[in-house]
Amino acid sequence: MATKLGKQTFKPDTPPYLISTGTVAGPFEGQGPLRDYFDHIYTDTLAGERSFESAEKEMMANACFTCLNKANKTPQEVDVFLAGDILNQTITSGFSALELAIPYMGIFGACSTSALGLAFATMLVDGNYAKLVLAAASSHNSSAERNYRYPTEYGATRKPTTQWTVTGAGAALVAKEGTGPRITHLTVGKVQDLGIKDPMNLGAAMAPAAAATMVQHFADTGRGPDYYDLVVTGDLGKFGHELAIRSCVTKGGFDLTKNYEDCGVMLYDTEKQDVHSGGSGCASSALVTYGYLYQKLLSGELKKILLVATGALHSVTSFQQGANIPSIAHAVSLEIEC
Amino acid sequence: MATKLGKQTFKPDTPPYLISTGTVAGPFEGQGPLRDYFDHIYTDTLAGERSFESAEKEMMANACFTCLNKANKTPQEVDVFLAGDILNQTITSGFSALELAIPYMGIFGACSTSALGLAFATMLVDGNYAKLVLAAASSHNSSAERNYRYPTEYGATRKPTTQWTVTGAGAALVAKEGTGPRITHLTVGKVQDLGIKDPMNLGAAMAPAAAATMVQHFADTGRGPDYYDLVVTGDLGKFGHELAIRSCVTKGGFDLTKNYEDCGVMLYDTEKQDVHSGGSGCASSALVTYGYLYQKLLSGELKKILLVATGALHSVTSFQQGANIPSIAHAVSLEIEC
Repeated sequence: MATKLGKQTFKPDTPPYLISTGTVAGPFEGQGPLRDYFDHIYTDTLAGERSFESAEKEMMANACFTCLNKANKTPQEVDVFLAGDILNQTITSGFSALELAIPYMGIFGACSTSALGLAFATMLVDGNYAKLVLAAASSHNSSAERNYRYPTEYGATRKPTTQWTVTGAGAALVAKEGTGPRITHLTVGKVQDLGIKDPMNLGAAMAPAAAATMVQHFADTGRGPDYYDLVVTGDLGKFGHELAIRSCVTKGGFDLTKNYEDCGVMLYDTEKQDVHSGGSGCASSALVTYGYLYQKLLSGELKKILLVATGALHSVTSFQQGANIPSIAHAVSLEIEC
Repeated sequence: MATKLGKQTFKPDTPPYLISTGTVAGPFEGQGPLRDYFDHIYTDTLAGERSFESAEKEMMANACFTCLNKANKTPQEVDVFLAGDILNQTITSGFSALELAIPYMGIFGACSTSALGLAFATMLVDGNYAKLVLAAASSHNSSAERNYRYPTEYGATRKPTTQWTVTGAGAALVAKEGTGPRITHLTVGKVQDLGIKDPMNLGAAMAPAAAATMVQHFADTGRGPDYYDLVVTGDLGKFGHELAIRSCVTKGGFDLTKNYEDCGVMLYDTEKQDVHSGGSGCASSALVTYGYLYQKLLSGELKKILLVATGALHSVTSFQQGANIPSIAHAVSLEIEC
């Protein structure tokens, strides 16, 4: 049961707990600065499977089972499994749901899936439809590149604004009772379109959605950016991060320069790892939030985080037909009492 | 707030109302036996647009605006828009959400999207997260065929078990208060896989999921098929319909022969319209349920319906890699007091 604040924000009456997370990363992500915060790092992008798509499924299922094991829960105890990914028809999620055998409700938010899953999970748990919800998201560099752009084997030239699709998966257990950070607010995004058409510049396409949702969240809650120890977007990359800062000033007069970061920038050593503008994909926010940030919350180093995950709602077909790239962002507040 | 029955079924404490629906159909669907029950029938599959994908977006947006208009509601009054479709990255839904400018939470259930949307909407409304939710689903024969199989211009040979992707869209307004049929139970499906690999025989791939969810619904609620005036699956087609009947006997000893139909069979005049096994796609269950069945509920000719919408959770990539076609079915009970 929730109190609605303004037009887009929901405040759960009993904020659910994020009682456990599971994170698995690809080998390249395992060389980044957050490597110590992941539960498992694969030595091979194929993860022992015969295709990159099967590897991505292996990763999501592994993140889910890891998340359950860490909380000492079985799939049978979970009421609903919520999952999404960026492959066509979200096959990673469907095949993972088959393996988990938990009642499954598919979601689609492109790279905003981590926050979308937490939002739906909170609604189900606080709305007394579930006691335990498992939410997962994944992406894989090689399956995504050949799905959206070129097979990586082609070695296609990349622009400075291009991002690197993150290989990995993250899962979170949202529960009515337990310990850990709580999900205290949700802001559901509206789709934005400022006319960007270039899939090599998704940060620019998604920054307006991030800014719109952040400004709405601040307006609805009466909180400013300084309420939070950290405001973090999912995968805007360096260019998108800059644009979001500027857009938040223009749209709402909010100053993000002090405590705002982007998961896609945090995930890699951008001096040494050649990811151009930064990481992207569902796994970007999932790995950073469920890996690094979750542990910072548990340790009390961070107490209040606003996660704003963004998604570009395009496809190869819409791009080829000359359509713009509309985008969306969903925000969730994660707070811990210490 | 819900009571959970068994492992997969939810009974809302205050069953939400289906206060309005909107249905738009393609020209071929407009020649079928249910043509008088649709709000709009297009004379052209392009719906005045330049591509089949844009046409599908036009159809979903039109169904949504029609649904809102019939209830005398504006987009601004709607708390959340839930939508899904079967195009890659559900672009129909994303672009429709941009046009509607309602806070949007994307869902993916392939052809089970109508029931998945009603299930999520019920959870949000009964869980006190929304007073008004708009749920939509669409498919388009020409956009789907070239997405999944061959462009229709190729004139590829079709097998007897092949189904005809339905062109159209349906939308429903689920409200805390109002009049009309109420959503009294939900059964969330688990993914099933009995080894079918043939995308020209989706009825066989999805029938086990339909049967599993129906048997679970009957077990969880203590209701048998005869509780309902009509049990209706979304798009199994003639062959899948037969298989579902047999499977319900085998799995649970339930006799569906008296009051069980399939939307994909009901939608066309299978003697005159060459759809082989019947209709498929998200629009199959959406058009029949939100068009024909909704009016039969309002008139009291039918009082209790169990909608069981099925979805095949495959993609072209998973098919080409030799994977099976896992499937899911979600069930919702629609009941009216007269």
